Amino acid sequence: MANPALFRVIDHAVEKYAMIEEGDRILVGASGGKDSTALVEYFASRLIRRFGPRFSVAALHIASDIGSPLDPVLAARFAEWGIPLVTEHVDVTGRLKPGKKMNCWWCSTQRRTELNNYAMREGFNKIALGHHLDDILETLLMNALVKGELSTMPPRLTYEKYPVTIIRPLCLADIPMIVRHATAQGYISSTCTCSFQDNSGRKKARGKLEALTGGRYAEKRKLFDALSNIKSAYLP
Amino acid sequence: MANPALFRVIDHAVEKYAMIEEGDRILVGASGGKDSTALVEYFASRLIRRFGPRFSVAALHIASDIGSPLDPVLAARFAEWGIPLVTEHVDVTGRLKPGKKMNCWWCSTQRRTELNNYAMREGFNKIALGHHLDDILETLLMNALVKGELSTMPPRLTYEKYPVTIIRPLCLADIPMIVRHATAQGYISSTCTCSFQDNSGRKKARGKLEALTGGRYAEKRKLFDALSNIKSAYLP
Repeated sequence: MANPALFRVIDHAVEKYAMIEEGDRILVGASGGKDSTALVEYFASRLIRRFGPRFSVAALHIASDIGSPLDPVLAARFAEWGIPLVTEHVDVTGRLKPGKKMNCWWCSTQRRTELNNYAMREGFNKIALGHHLDDILETLLMNALVKGELSTMPPRLTYEKYPVTIIRPLCLADIPMIVRHATAQGYISSTCTCSFQDNSGRKKARGKLEALTGGRYAEKRKLFDALSNIKSAYLP
Repeated sequence: MANPALFRVIDHAVEKYAMIEEGDRILVGASGGKDSTALVEYFASRLIRRFGPRFSVAALHIASDIGSPLDPVLAARFAEWGIPLVTEHVDVTGRLKPGKKMNCWWCSTQRRTELNNYAMREGFNKIALGHHLDDILETLLMNALVKGELSTMPPRLTYEKYPVTIIRPLCLADIPMIVRHATAQGYISSTCTCSFQDNSGRKKARGKLEALTGGRYAEKRKLFDALSNIKSAYLP
């Protein structure tokens, strides 16, 4: 399992969790980062390859008062790939309640709400997010070590209060795999990472995941697989 | 939860997992290490404190051709604590099949079988083992990262093929807590650790647990608690 090609790994996840179904209208949350950009490119490649269920896809970029705007180079790539792109503006700071400071949780909640509302308004039944294997395992570690809870961002999640299903097609792909792909495709330098603040909790979790797995894909996959291979008789 | 006293932590585990029940005949596997010695001392203290269900307890030391013999100082302490001690000899190396090399798995299986057989022959209904919180979390990490399985040594386990129940009263106690106790009680220097080979898998797991929790008891406990707080909807 050394260095598998990104799209092959995404194909596997999409099949495993039935992420694409006949007639799906999928909205991709496009942050301008490498992960969601690779995800948009993947969906485009599936439309070209024309295998599996028929579906349609569009990308929504939530621009905000914090964080950098979408690089025009990326917008041009989306157009080239034939994926419609819409940009919505959200005043994340302006929505803060008086006396509250900006933080990652607030920003992501605002953006997620906007994404959900747009999807429902425009008739999308699925929202595809760019969270990858490392994100999922980091969240697992944070939830276990801070909340004492075994949970993370699942590959597929049906909301109780929204008629949309969340899918995470990058759930089996790790960062090095995505970076290699985005570098080879020539768009890595156009992608951005939020620089508003260092999310120290996640940074620490990234270091812990590295210590746990040595950064090796095989061990990350074992850890991920363990989450659906739970032996209750051998747990407290 | 900084530096709680060992016996208070064991009391909590014993109650939480109903480890001691009316009329129990408990056999402690006494390796000669600090963990099972502290466990023997704990049971002795409960007999003196006379609270909770009535039970009896004895210790079995499995001596083998590898590893050091039980320090006479410990045998004297057991006697002082009023806990009967029996020693059985097992030729662990002699039981190896031709061409096989000694390893931790083989040795522990042989000793465990002997412990089970002795318990059944002598009418014990419970076997108490000295595995502690760090052991349990290390096994968790090894099972997850190597076997892709979420499992470990549970605090209480009913065997399918033997009429004995395994209990691990140290399941909520970590190494520093046990070392502090054994040092204060003056027997740490009489206890031994198997020096037959470096069990590199477990050593690596110990390092990983350290990286994950910073060696902090509170984080170890969160991780342990997460194992009985599984949110299936938020897992793959």
